[in-house]
Amino acid sequence: MSAVTGTVRNGVDTQQMYATLDLIKDQPELARFRFRASNRWVDGAHNRSTIQGFYGAGQEDASRAQPFELEAGEPPVLLGMNTGPNPVEYVLHALAACLTISIVYVAAARKVTLTSVESTVAGELDARGAFGLSDAVRNGFERISVSFRVTGEASEDKLREVVERAKARSAVYDIVTNGVPVSLEVAVG
Amino acid sequence: MSAVTGTVRNGVDTQQMYATLDLIKDQPELARFRFRASNRWVDGAHNRSTIQGFYGAGQEDASRAQPFELEAGEPPVLLGMNTGPNPVEYVLHALAACLTISIVYVAAARKVTLTSVESTVAGELDARGAFGLSDAVRNGFERISVSFRVTGEASEDKLREVVERAKARSAVYDIVTNGVPVSLEVAVG
Repeated sequence: MSAVTGTVRNGVDTQQMYATLDLIKDQPELARFRFRASNRWVDGAHNRSTIQGFYGAGQEDASRAQPFELEAGEPPVLLGMNTGPNPVEYVLHALAACLTISIVYVAAARKVTLTSVESTVAGELDARGAFGLSDAVRNGFERISVSFRVTGEASEDKLREVVERAKARSAVYDIVTNGVPVSLEVAVG
Repeated sequence: MSAVTGTVRNGVDTQQMYATLDLIKDQPELARFRFRASNRWVDGAHNRSTIQGFYGAGQEDASRAQPFELEAGEPPVLLGMNTGPNPVEYVLHALAACLTISIVYVAAARKVTLTSVESTVAGELDARGAFGLSDAVRNGFERISVSFRVTGEASEDKLREVVERAKARSAVYDIVTNGVPVSLEVAVG
């Protein structure tokens, strides 16, 4: 963890943060982002996504010289070979990662220096849904529980405030709790 | 891609699949799963999740000798250093991966041999939400569009049916379109 260095707090350049906020206030269209992933089936449960470019801040981003590659799979008990985390585990990771980044950014903006942020996320599901064995249970998680431990140079109340604000502003927390309309297009051949 | 070898179709052991389905029909409690991830902040937007064990099929799983480690981050335009895909990109990957696995499993169950499954997933958001600059826009994706291309040894109608059924049974498609209740607990100090 970095401490405060110049305008950097919690590893976040707060000067750049304020400049970004000012810029978006002036030109709201710069806040439009379009993220994307390409996925290809390998074999069985094994598949791989490639993530590199995205549109945002008024242009196609070119900051990533190399793509990120993410492997997915299933454990043997779900008919796979552990070629990667399974998709619902990736959702738990996305949620933990987003809340963590939100906590770190909100703390930086509020001049709170953090020393640690740790979390565990757990999701429960009944596989009869996804296996098509029961219409009485849903396919996905019935519930998710998140547990954070945050330490820093601020009062407990202030740290709790930071977490509350982060939760209120997290993109993935919003996606997972409120859902998103998804359109699906299929080409076959 | 593997072809049909004994009871294996599309890399899925269909004999194991039918045995699993029969077992769950007899003992529905075996379908209870609890997946989990542990996350730790590194610096700035950089954080890392560790994923290894889970509870399922009546016991704690021990099939993964090593944990999976997932790095997350943000691109410079979102105040990070590209230490990993960002959280919303992980959601897109999770969705593509889950639909792909569902397509492959449904096809295996229906004796459809696939030759390729490719997809692109895109999600649009207005960063004014997550930045706290507007209450008129949400924090997460406003919409997600998924595009699949599936080829295999079956009629186009049959391949479309497989994709429709996979969509109706995908855990992450359910999570992302319908949302999940999330409880958040915080310890500070």
